[in-house]
Amino acid sequence: MKEVRIGLVGTGWMGKSHSKSFLNALYHFGEEYGKPVFEMVSDINEESAFEVKKKFGFKRYSKDWQDIVTDKNIDLVDITTPNAFHYEIAKAALLNNKHVYCEKPLSLSADQSKELVDLAKEKGLVNYVGFNNVMNPATKYIKELVESGKLGDITKVSGTYDQDALLDAQIPISWRHMKKISGSGTLGDLGSHLFSVLQFILGDMKAVNALTRTVIKKRPVRSDSTDMKAVENDDIVILLAQYENGAVGTLSSSRIATGRKNYLSFEIQGTKGAVHYSLENLNDVHVYFTEDHSVDRGFRKVLLGNDHEGYSAFQPASGIAIGFNDFKTLETHEVLSSITKGTSYICDFNFGFKVDQIIEAILESSESNNWVSI
Amino acid sequence: MKEVRIGLVGTGWMGKSHSKSFLNALYHFGEEYGKPVFEMVSDINEESAFEVKKKFGFKRYSKDWQDIVTDKNIDLVDITTPNAFHYEIAKAALLNNKHVYCEKPLSLSADQSKELVDLAKEKGLVNYVGFNNVMNPATKYIKELVESGKLGDITKVSGTYDQDALLDAQIPISWRHMKKISGSGTLGDLGSHLFSVLQFILGDMKAVNALTRTVIKKRPVRSDSTDMKAVENDDIVILLAQYENGAVGTLSSSRIATGRKNYLSFEIQGTKGAVHYSLENLNDVHVYFTEDHSVDRGFRKVLLGNDHEGYSAFQPASGIAIGFNDFKTLETHEVLSSITKGTSYICDFNFGFKVDQIIEAILESSESNNWVSI
Amino acid sequence: MKEVRIGLVGTGWMGKSHSKSFLNALYHFGEEYGKPVFEMVSDINEESAFEVKKKFGFKRYSKDWQDIVTDKNIDLVDITTPNAFHYEIAKAALLNNKHVYCEKPLSLSADQSKELVDLAKEKGLVNYVGFNNVMNPATKYIKELVESGKLGDITKVSGTYDQDALLDAQIPISWRHMKKISGSGTLGDLGSHLFSVLQFILGDMKAVNALTRTVIKKRPVRSDSTDMKAVENDDIVILLAQYENGAVGTLSSSRIATGRKNYLSFEIQGTKGAVHYSLENLNDVHVYFTEDHSVDRGFRKVLLGNDHEGYSAFQPASGIAIGFNDFKTLETHEVLSSITKGTSYICDFNFGFKVDQIIEAILESSESNNWVSI
Amino acid sequence: MKEVRIGLVGTGWMGKSHSKSFLNALYHFGEEYGKPVFEMVSDINEESAFEVKKKFGFKRYSKDWQDIVTDKNIDLVDITTPNAFHYEIAKAALLNNKHVYCEKPLSLSADQSKELVDLAKEKGLVNYVGFNNVMNPATKYIKELVESGKLGDITKVSGTYDQDALLDAQIPISWRHMKKISGSGTLGDLGSHLFSVLQFILGDMKAVNALTRTVIKKRPVRSDSTDMKAVENDDIVILLAQYENGAVGTLSSSRIATGRKNYLSFEIQGTKGAVHYSLENLNDVHVYFTEDHSVDRGFRKVLLGNDHEGYSAFQPASGIAIGFNDFKTLETHEVLSSITKGTSYICDFNFGFKVDQIIEAILESSESNNWVSI
Repeated sequence: MKEVRIGLVGTGWMGKSHSKSFLNALYHFGEEYGKPVFEMVSDINEESAFEVKKKFGFKRYSKDWQDIVTDKNIDLVDITTPNAFHYEIAKAALLNNKHVYCEKPLSLSADQSKELVDLAKEKGLVNYVGFNNVMNPATKYIKELVESGKLGDITKVSGTYDQDALLDAQIPISWRHMKKISGSGTLGDLGSHLFSVLQFILGDMKAVNALTRTVIKKRPVRSDSTDMKAVENDDIVILLAQYENGAVGTLSSSRIATGRKNYLSFEIQGTKGAVHYSLENLNDVHVYFTEDHSVDRGFRKVLLGNDHEGYSAFQPASGIAIGFNDFKTLETHEVLSSITKGTSYICDFNFGFKVDQIIEAILESSESNNWVSI
Repeated sequence: MKEVRIGLVGTGWMGKSHSKSFLNALYHFGEEYGKPVFEMVSDINEESAFEVKKKFGFKRYSKDWQDIVTDKNIDLVDITTPNAFHYEIAKAALLNNKHVYCEKPLSLSADQSKELVDLAKEKGLVNYVGFNNVMNPATKYIKELVESGKLGDITKVSGTYDQDALLDAQIPISWRHMKKISGSGTLGDLGSHLFSVLQFILGDMKAVNALTRTVIKKRPVRSDSTDMKAVENDDIVILLAQYENGAVGTLSSSRIATGRKNYLSFEIQGTKGAVHYSLENLNDVHVYFTEDHSVDRGFRKVLLGNDHEGYSAFQPASGIAIGFNDFKTLETHEVLSSITKGTSYICDFNFGFKVDQIIEAILESSESNNWVSI
Repeated sequence: MKEVRIGLVGTGWMGKSHSKSFLNALYHFGEEYGKPVFEMVSDINEESAFEVKKKFGFKRYSKDWQDIVTDKNIDLVDITTPNAFHYEIAKAALLNNKHVYCEKPLSLSADQSKELVDLAKEKGLVNYVGFNNVMNPATKYIKELVESGKLGDITKVSGTYDQDALLDAQIPISWRHMKKISGSGTLGDLGSHLFSVLQFILGDMKAVNALTRTVIKKRPVRSDSTDMKAVENDDIVILLAQYENGAVGTLSSSRIATGRKNYLSFEIQGTKGAVHYSLENLNDVHVYFTEDHSVDRGFRKVLLGNDHEGYSAFQPASGIAIGFNDFKTLETHEVLSSITKGTSYICDFNFGFKVDQIIEAILESSESNNWVSI
Repeated sequence: MKEVRIGLVGTGWMGKSHSKSFLNALYHFGEEYGKPVFEMVSDINEESAFEVKKKFGFKRYSKDWQDIVTDKNIDLVDITTPNAFHYEIAKAALLNNKHVYCEKPLSLSADQSKELVDLAKEKGLVNYVGFNNVMNPATKYIKELVESGKLGDITKVSGTYDQDALLDAQIPISWRHMKKISGSGTLGDLGSHLFSVLQFILGDMKAVNALTRTVIKKRPVRSDSTDMKAVENDDIVILLAQYENGAVGTLSSSRIATGRKNYLSFEIQGTKGAVHYSLENLNDVHVYFTEDHSVDRGFRKVLLGNDHEGYSAFQPASGIAIGFNDFKTLETHEVLSSITKGTSYICDFNFGFKVDQIIEAILESSESNNWVSI
């Protein structure tokens, strides 16, 4: 057994989620993959830091993340702050020879991300970006369907990540709507999840042609206010994509997508098979094989089960629904394992960098109205 | 009761389908909407012409469509020939003061179609293009949802028409793969149906940005041959679309779409509601209203029934599945009614012209790699 | 080509549906299976008889069904009267050496039906009962799945036929609610369809244990009346069933089944596979095979297509939705073919008799509260 | 904050699941509902006891459950042993004035359960039975739909709990197949979950009429053996049920239900609405209201979200899938809360007793072939 001493920066929903997930990873996978030790937590809001210290039993807390990245008793810096701080903290952590686990996105630009990629490589440290949906057993199963050639050559892809959480025009303006703090809108927020899943399954994207729309142009500054402020980024993004493997496709995302709650949905068509999937029904993968006898051929509704990597940690038998939070448990397990056993992992900084490149190409295309190579 | 004396040109699947549909229109709607009289049928293949004459009781037959368009006992010229002949026959029919019912597409170019639009208008004759799916009671219901404002302002659209009928690379080359005879590939063949349905529901398209792909680059000249010939048009088309009403969307079509059989599928999101639909389950319309109480809110699976225009001709009660052929019965009913009662109809030549414009803009965009206005 | 001269008795929805279906059978299958000739139609309501004569081109009409059964120019007596008259007319027709095509149910009792079975056998005449759903290509496909052994030994069955057409307690009382005219309620009306489909697929039922309920105990005598009359038969029936093949199951039917429109739905589980199906999505058959590789195993959504018997008469390619009316076309085709070619058919009088036996056993069980053997 | 000192008896899957769930309850709901303290764990297998002690940080362990029930530092005895020991341990715990949390079933007979009900009442102690599925937010939502009258009077119910985990006849015999240790087969194992959910939603059952089947009559004694032993209890149970509220229904369960993995599925029809649900898609509740405007009426697919009790502990926004393990977290939260705050709970011993009564009535009916009152 090896301890992994964690320094958590940020105590919002994700900060708590990471901590809870580390504990569940321990219970589900056992301490041979590393025992998470909650060493220190920091938040500029001292009260929040203290609360999370108490809730999860962190030994110490601080108002200043510098205390974390420089602490000699910390092995892993876990970054869950607002996006704008990721780069600076991750860089400092690496320079202090800490392993880093950073919520997505890795930074606010592909350039910054590339710098972190190189630094992490030079230092030989674990560098993990928390793309929730990549660790989904369904995603891994679909990746295997593609990689094994069971679907043949991939021809066409369609995908979207739609939510209607921001549909109501009376929801006040927030950091999500501000270009400086958040960068793009639904593109980076939801779209990045879609791109990360497809990056894993299909490999590199080659070129994009995109269009963005801000539908709700102004929002109140507070819920009880008639004072309005301009929304600065995209409510909707739509794009054409070309993949290195020859596939082409239509992708999109909307944060005002009426009726859709967590609709990360896609269909991948190959010359020998096809698959479609939606996160709103996350335990069902629909897969079709042309080699089935034609009279009995159709999309199979495959329920996640013990044959699918990651699933069996949670359930004793197939077909018992897992949930979204289990993905985060799988993620923290992978983080622990990469530190204690040196196991490989998918969502390294380079992976995060590739997603950033896609996002930047989409923004560039939406401004130039042209195809942009990645 | 008024007789509508029909001259049918072309005796393939669609020729027979039109004739059968005229009879079913009579039985379902009654002769007050016009009694179809099978006056003459023509086909360059005399045997085929004779066979259809006998099957449906046409009074006469001919090898030459000129005999039809010039016959004084014919009221309506029904054109079901290969696409390349539509323009010439329709023009001759109009010039001879015949009503025209022409299978889609109206012609091989927007220019030709425009000429027919103007001629029909000048002559004051019925000019109908047979877009199968527009007469679908589901399509009409969805059109009403949009037009009534129940879905609010339309924000995002996604749609596809996918089939895998041509997936097998061993299927021999045919007129469908030849640019000269067929024009585009899946774009005009399947895509035109998708565009016609969305044209009806959403109104005019404003601009497109498209990409096409020919995946199966060669096909055998015959099923038993190793002699290969180049496929000249698109297996796949993907595009971004902007509508006049402000909506944006991703559209696509593939004729090699593994697992999909008749997947004309779309989702329309508005600020107050959303709808999604697939022709593979043609009796189910899924509709969502934001005004529903949130605890009970979700997409409603509405089964077509007596409340939906067109349905009650076929079934005595709601929820009893209608089929694709019923759409053609509704179409021929509309043709008869427009002639005998002067009722208005959706798919006139101008409607067909607009679909042709969309197709041409998509082709142009796929060649120029730029946005093209319509 | 052989003509089949038809005498139609009854001109309601089903009378018209039969006539239209005979014509569609001709157009879809061709006259080599027999050309239907509309010889005479009768209805006690002379006006209705005249109207249908005109609509379908019957040569003659009459107020008296006796004119039909005794006419020397009639080959087939087609019975679509209210249920209470089926027995008498069918018997007279057989005695006059006419082929008989009788809407379901064959009669009002198993005893009457048995008498007709024996008489038809003695006379060597075609004796067909119109169970709509048996001719469904999905039903035939499922029958084949069972009969071929692909599903293994059948273990458990569940099934229901639910509609909510009579849910509204303000719908006036009608013949359907009267024991003398209609016999049972939903049991005979909807249940008989469920039993006919399962009889075909699974073979003979062995014993039942049933319970019935009349939920809406009184209904107004007219829609505008406060005068109420007692409903005399079942709104709901539920039962346990044992089949000769060893399967056991739960079956039910309700005519006040809120939300269900045409929900003839069932699941059949065998030791090697399983299938589930609903008439509300009549083109989808869901089938599961244990022999599939476990990681990819799931219910396959098989769309009806050219591989399924009956389908290809209607569509040129797989996956294009057929509808309920097409079943009736297949049925009339089978009637014509049995007369002109002597082909075998499923729904003979003996089949109808077996369904009657099931219904009587269910009624007996619901009164005795005991298991009843069939 | 109040500590709840836990003594866990049994260290199998459920023992670990309870412990993990107590911790998650703490993290999701906070310590104001009680802080679980892992005081002692026991298992006759000392190694297992030690392992769980270490995994979850129990202070002490023992080979003997008597050490737990008599320990003065324990507040709650958590029973996760094989079913046959539940009664004895629960009784001893209550006699020693411990709160009790017992996995389902409460005991092996209604008589034993009744004794425990009375004892717990007399002692005034928390008495909780762990029916997983009752704490499902979907179950609570459906309960509310019924109780509020939104569905009107309930008329018909259908339900099943099917799994195919034991379909393979080569799976060796185990305690689950033995009458003495396990009591009934699928009836008690899976059926009890179905009955518990419906007991909660619909209230008391009044009478049953049942049939059981053992399809796989012998199983090998070990996986590599040809030595066969008789299966002593039911693979399949089917039954008719009458509820006190007037509803009637068909229920069933199979542990050899090909293709079904975790198919706890039911439909409830009322005079004003209906609902259907399946645990295989646990985040979707399908609900229908007759009061919706008819043209737009259909089953609504409601995704679980913040409006549904229990959900918001797990996710920050609606529509993000929760999983089966979250039900157990909700359950342990309710246990903690009932101890520290005296809050009421659904699954008390009396609830468990009622489920036992249903199971006994079903067994009696399946032997007598008669209706049995409960």
